[in-house]
Amino acid sequence: MAKELTSRGENYSQWYNDLVVKADLAENSVVRGCMVIKPYGYALWEKMQAELDRMFKETGHVNAYFPLFIPKSFFSREASHVEGFAKECAVVTHYRLKNNPAGGGVVVDPDARLEEELIVRPTSETIIWNTYKNWIQSYRDLPILCNQWANVVRWEMRTRLFLRTAEFLWQEGHTAHASAEEALAETERMINVYADFAENFMALPVIKGAKSENERFAGALQTYTIEALMQDGKALQSGTSHFLGQNFAKAFDVRFATQEGKEDFVWATSWGVSTRLIGALIMAHSDDNGLVLPPKLAPYQVVIVPIYKNNEQLSEISTVVNGILAKLKAAGITAKYDSADNKKPGWKFAEYELKGVPVRLALGARDLENGTIEVARRDTLSKETVPLDGIDTHVKKLLDDIQVSIFNKAAQFRAENTTKVDSWDEFKDVLQNRGGFLLAHWDGTAETEQRIKEETKATIRCIPFDSQPESGRCVFTGRPSERRVLFAQAY
Amino acid sequence: MAKELTSRGENYSQWYNDLVVKADLAENSVVRGCMVIKPYGYALWEKMQAELDRMFKETGHVNAYFPLFIPKSFFSREASHVEGFAKECAVVTHYRLKNNPAGGGVVVDPDARLEEELIVRPTSETIIWNTYKNWIQSYRDLPILCNQWANVVRWEMRTRLFLRTAEFLWQEGHTAHASAEEALAETERMINVYADFAENFMALPVIKGAKSENERFAGALQTYTIEALMQDGKALQSGTSHFLGQNFAKAFDVRFATQEGKEDFVWATSWGVSTRLIGALIMAHSDDNGLVLPPKLAPYQVVIVPIYKNNEQLSEISTVVNGILAKLKAAGITAKYDSADNKKPGWKFAEYELKGVPVRLALGARDLENGTIEVARRDTLSKETVPLDGIDTHVKKLLDDIQVSIFNKAAQFRAENTTKVDSWDEFKDVLQNRGGFLLAHWDGTAETEQRIKEETKATIRCIPFDSQPESGRCVFTGRPSERRVLFAQAY
Repeated sequence: MAKELTSRGENYSQWYNDLVVKADLAENSVVRGCMVIKPYGYALWEKMQAELDRMFKETGHVNAYFPLFIPKSFFSREASHVEGFAKECAVVTHYRLKNNPAGGGVVVDPDARLEEELIVRPTSETIIWNTYKNWIQSYRDLPILCNQWANVVRWEMRTRLFLRTAEFLWQEGHTAHASAEEALAETERMINVYADFAENFMALPVIKGAKSENERFAGALQTYTIEALMQDGKALQSGTSHFLGQNFAKAFDVRFATQEGKEDFVWATSWGVSTRLIGALIMAHSDDNGLVLPPKLAPYQVVIVPIYKNNEQLSEISTVVNGILAKLKAAGITAKYDSADNKKPGWKFAEYELKGVPVRLALGARDLENGTIEVARRDTLSKETVPLDGIDTHVKKLLDDIQVSIFNKAAQFRAENTTKVDSWDEFKDVLQNRGGFLLAHWDGTAETEQRIKEETKATIRCIPFDSQPESGRCVFTGRPSERRVLFAQAY
Repeated sequence: MAKELTSRGENYSQWYNDLVVKADLAENSVVRGCMVIKPYGYALWEKMQAELDRMFKETGHVNAYFPLFIPKSFFSREASHVEGFAKECAVVTHYRLKNNPAGGGVVVDPDARLEEELIVRPTSETIIWNTYKNWIQSYRDLPILCNQWANVVRWEMRTRLFLRTAEFLWQEGHTAHASAEEALAETERMINVYADFAENFMALPVIKGAKSENERFAGALQTYTIEALMQDGKALQSGTSHFLGQNFAKAFDVRFATQEGKEDFVWATSWGVSTRLIGALIMAHSDDNGLVLPPKLAPYQVVIVPIYKNNEQLSEISTVVNGILAKLKAAGITAKYDSADNKKPGWKFAEYELKGVPVRLALGARDLENGTIEVARRDTLSKETVPLDGIDTHVKKLLDDIQVSIFNKAAQFRAENTTKVDSWDEFKDVLQNRGGFLLAHWDGTAETEQRIKEETKATIRCIPFDSQPESGRCVFTGRPSERRVLFAQAY
């Protein structure tokens, strides 16, 4: 292969870093912690955005845009929010540069200091609720169902491409409701949208559940999450939806006249997914040859490579390929024809394997004679030669099959790496030797959760919605417990 | 009308401000100069984005994403760029807040000062060319045709919603080429894309041309522009495309091995349009009743209002409307049915006029009996009653007609407000009493341009591509001139 990848077995973490860079998804920029999302990576994000945006609109949401900057004082308004977010932030203190009087470039103009510092948004609850205050007077103004596609900044000390970066792209939904019930229903609706997207587009099986109090969003009464399992046995939180109660309405004094003629504070939710999903996608499905992308999100689903000895052959092949391209397009399949003649077919095969193109078609002179074409699928690396006639139908079926196969493979991996544990020794043993998801009893206290984290780095990923009532004893303290919760080490 | 607008005649500037806010497009935020784009305004932006993005992709471009922050020192690298951009910027100096030891919220942590300040991008040439340095070794790596959809910040002192805001949304294309010719061709291609978009989607006639040296982008050898005329006789620069020569390649040392085996600096272009286009759209077409939106960009093209006396009538009308909605949808027309019963039809009529919905359908009990429906078009405010049968076809034709009519009206206005002037007195007289575009001879010097600007506030909007060679004398200095250029006062 042209570009060597570290194998997963050798060093999973290095494999991931290599893959992101070598598959041209993203790279680190000169600005600490900020990434450059390269065209191939951005194309993947655009596909994700398009589906999510459609799903948000189908569930009644509209997009809007709120300021990048938040006045510093806003972070002090909601008590727990300040603890969670007003810490590692980018702080704007000045609004002008000037030529260095000593020569050699520009310096910050000390006369252009802001009266109040501005924070580059780490999340937008505060500025949005300050805005909603003017939008809401009566129950007739509710619900407000806004989403925003935006960049946010959290000054993370240790960053990794897509998984944790200082600046990242995301969407943040912020809704306002007349009752707690309606807000809770919205919180649940959106975690279901995320789970639907993860499973049916990313081919990523996820466990839906509620966060423990320790792991809740700063300012939330309830945080729902979808948790996915990566190939190294670690969990990745892939999307969250928060029931914020009346906390932000109280912090920003957002009241409304109820239908009954009384006055009440407005109920809130917020929910978001980010470019982190790209990291999840990579780590869940890809292999030592490169990316494995689900067809529904692949920037192009098919690549066609001509095998030829001379220009005459290339010309004949290209004529046939153009017919195939037209048929694929008509079937709604995105395809790329790579007839570049400064690269050999073997190089191209490796390159598109690295980039995770779901289906590769190769067409040579002998195929033309025989009326056949070679079809290779990226997920299984298997090849077959099929009749050229009906290739569009064949590819369409194959893409559907690949989408399902990738999901099933990940689901099987998760099933094999989810363990019920009933003692503390077993908990530690499984975590150390197998990793994965652990279903264990927990006494429900924050203290126990904290101690388990300190001893094992495992956290409660969620209390799964589908966990059945079951009497048991906390693996750590032996105190009584009513249901198992999901533990794992996590990204 | 429920929401009174200032009329254009009374106070054009106030009319614009009123309209933006009352039509729910945008509002000022608590952060000085930063706007909140409300759902209806953002829906308009999304329609614009979708068309532009399609056009960029059809001309071979791909999207990518580069960091929000730029190291301060980057602005000193390109001599004229530093003058143009490294001035009124948002400067990040710290990366952490901490609890105020004196109590009462958070303060900037003095220990968390950045070694080098970061500037929130006012435009991204510098960070992108610093990145391209690693992407380009040989002519085989060229061209690079990237676009970015992003937010940028320029610390403007006097701001107006959409027209000039501290933070705004835009796209910025940044391309890299192996030759000057290719880069120039790209610069021209993109100004043509912008003109196509303005004329065929925004229904906004524009004049394409080159900027004079004074008005060029900081760091460009050539700036092409599209200039539109607003109803108050002022010009609005609506999009620019820059030929940057090798300036940024030299500033960031981006060289490549040429096909001939030599080494050369890479050639660059950049081009952008922003949310300012929404301001142009409003000011070009709208009237004293509210927005007038071209059907191709209207968030919804049709609104249907039921006229009823009781629930039984509403129910009958709704059944018919559902059939109409299905037909319109099938014809690719977006429609909204407003059956809310807490608002009267008259209120709704005014509201959708204010919001510029191109076609309004009203359906009452008598219409049901007669098999008719009332159709009102927003641009002319005319109404007619037509057979219900075939309403989808009727509406489709009407929308096409409205799109063309709006363009023609703006084109006629421009023709009536473009004046050839041949003396300085005439120049001042027309500018003061009529405004609009002035076609005048100019001696080609920056000094004269500057003096004209000082005396009249008029600037050279562009040297139109289609201006014919014509001998004459500069209106200001009387020196010889070879062609007329386009003057106007501008936003």
